[in-house]
Amino acid sequence: MADTARRPGNRYGSRPTMKDVAAHAGVGLKTVSRVVNGEPGVTPDTERRVHEAINALGFRRNDSARVLRKGRTASVGLVLEDLADPFYGPLSRAVEEVARAHGALLINGSSAEDPDREQELALALCARRVDGLVVIPAGDDHRYLEPEIRAGVATVFVDRPAGKIDADAVLSDNFGGARHAVAHLLAHGHRRIGFIGDRPVIHTAAERLRGYRAAMAEAGIPVEDTWISLGATDPERVRRAAETLLDGPEPVTAVFAGNNRVTVTVVRVLSERPRPTALVGFDDFELADLLQPGVTVVAQDAAQLGRTAAERLFQQLDGVPHAPERTMLPTRLITRGSGELPPVD
Amino acid sequence: MADTARRPGNRYGSRPTMKDVAAHAGVGLKTVSRVVNGEPGVTPDTERRVHEAINALGFRRNDSARVLRKGRTASVGLVLEDLADPFYGPLSRAVEEVARAHGALLINGSSAEDPDREQELALALCARRVDGLVVIPAGDDHRYLEPEIRAGVATVFVDRPAGKIDADAVLSDNFGGARHAVAHLLAHGHRRIGFIGDRPVIHTAAERLRGYRAAMAEAGIPVEDTWISLGATDPERVRRAAETLLDGPEPVTAVFAGNNRVTVTVVRVLSERPRPTALVGFDDFELADLLQPGVTVVAQDAAQLGRTAAERLFQQLDGVPHAPERTMLPTRLITRGSGELPPVD
Repeated sequence: MADTARRPGNRYGSRPTMKDVAAHAGVGLKTVSRVVNGEPGVTPDTERRVHEAINALGFRRNDSARVLRKGRTASVGLVLEDLADPFYGPLSRAVEEVARAHGALLINGSSAEDPDREQELALALCARRVDGLVVIPAGDDHRYLEPEIRAGVATVFVDRPAGKIDADAVLSDNFGGARHAVAHLLAHGHRRIGFIGDRPVIHTAAERLRGYRAAMAEAGIPVEDTWISLGATDPERVRRAAETLLDGPEPVTAVFAGNNRVTVTVVRVLSERPRPTALVGFDDFELADLLQPGVTVVAQDAAQLGRTAAERLFQQLDGVPHAPERTMLPTRLITRGSGELPPVD
Repeated sequence: MADTARRPGNRYGSRPTMKDVAAHAGVGLKTVSRVVNGEPGVTPDTERRVHEAINALGFRRNDSARVLRKGRTASVGLVLEDLADPFYGPLSRAVEEVARAHGALLINGSSAEDPDREQELALALCARRVDGLVVIPAGDDHRYLEPEIRAGVATVFVDRPAGKIDADAVLSDNFGGARHAVAHLLAHGHRRIGFIGDRPVIHTAAERLRGYRAAMAEAGIPVEDTWISLGATDPERVRRAAETLLDGPEPVTAVFAGNNRVTVTVVRVLSERPRPTALVGFDDFELADLLQPGVTVVAQDAAQLGRTAAERLFQQLDGVPHAPERTMLPTRLITRGSGELPPVD
């Protein structure tokens, strides 16, 4: 594979100019300039034709923006998925530190897990002339970014891959980490192991479910449907799911929690029950070691995800040629007590 | 007070136009247009004069930007102080929800506690044409925002007030909350009460120190210098401070921790020691109730801070006339065990 899509001046050719827009729209250069600069004297019909040509060619005012920007700081955008998930704190901070080391400002926004919002935000950041984007995607179709990428906006996906476009992605080994977590519970004698995870349309959630199933299959244990609960990670939903797993006639003896939002609610539900239930959570979280028992987790390196993604972004901006790559970072099992409890029937 | 500084078209007059810039610089309108749009044909000296006039008048390309923006979403900026402090998660999310309810995008950035970075970021967001700014300030001089405010950018400070300008601010009752926390420890029999806080140049830290001193003075207890440790809130500094308070010949019997970053480290240090020491923390934090003992805190309503600030911002943007106000939100003492421990000598 020798795709060099993101190198301006290569493969996709150089950026379209105002002249290209004028030729495409069949109008004069001054007319394009008027439309682009919001000056009067253009009929609505002509304005529409110019906008169509701008969209068709993926024209952006970057070249003149460069001049405008003299003395201004370069900037990169980070599209987050959820502002209130503490997992993204160290990731954001790492992206920011790399940006700063490159003399660039970081501008963030959150999609709040809404694909339309993600698109709106990513394009708004491009319209505000960021030089590159780090995206934690909420959606699974990123073709809307193709014109921006062609126009030279560097783009790296992190935590989850891009959908329907070929782009750099920096991911954790979600499958391997989940398999390790469940194998750890199996090694401590558990057979009835529940899994509470995020919605399976989310890449990370699907990969962790796959890891759970793989570990159970390798141990020769048929998984009952009632052991798996997938859905939103708000406390109310997770609490109901945990209570169903724990309060039935044949309760699970261990729970694998699919992310830190799930884990903290499961910890809370378990703390209310006399019967000890083993727990391994995906993602580390603050104070996990000070709970009793300490919470065993499969930890991702959130800071390293952010750092790697940001460094790849600046490699693109520096014009280092490379094909889009998927980088996979390992996870780490941290044993603290909750994952080493024996099964209690 | 009937200051209506932030209403465009009032008091400060309407926005400066390209014509004003041309007159101020002593050049033709076309020359200004060339400079603003980054077109060629302007000598460096003329360009410099035009930029000086732009800066002197606070000219912004907003009017033409409005036209460019047809069909684009309005946006507001949020300048955070620290991406990795979980206190700002719910605050950011609340600002985002209010922005969304008003059909606006939220764009964030973090100053990482650096006043220069705050200024650079706030001005970069203005240059990218946000309609308003919510600022959690790192610095204490915000005169750099005056041209933006005059040009119609709505501005609200949250968590900490603006410095050297008169602007809307939404704050927690840091003084009252801290006084309440320390009075609570005094009511449980403590006399030797330590305070570990953030750097006193930070408004919230200074207010909390003032609350600590007020409660101690009201109880007639002279405060020894060694009981107070102010500085960065990184785990290493806080650990050293806590160990000094706890391991001397006359250790404190209770600690008041000045924010959530301090509290989690103090919890960790106390968990390593056999002698129970009482603790009240400023700021609630996740899992505080599941620790043993549960951690008594003075809770701020971070979401309500964000919501109130954002609503005030949109009132400004809607042209609702009002004088700059300081809104103070109450704090709430939540007792969970650690703050009710008796003194042990």
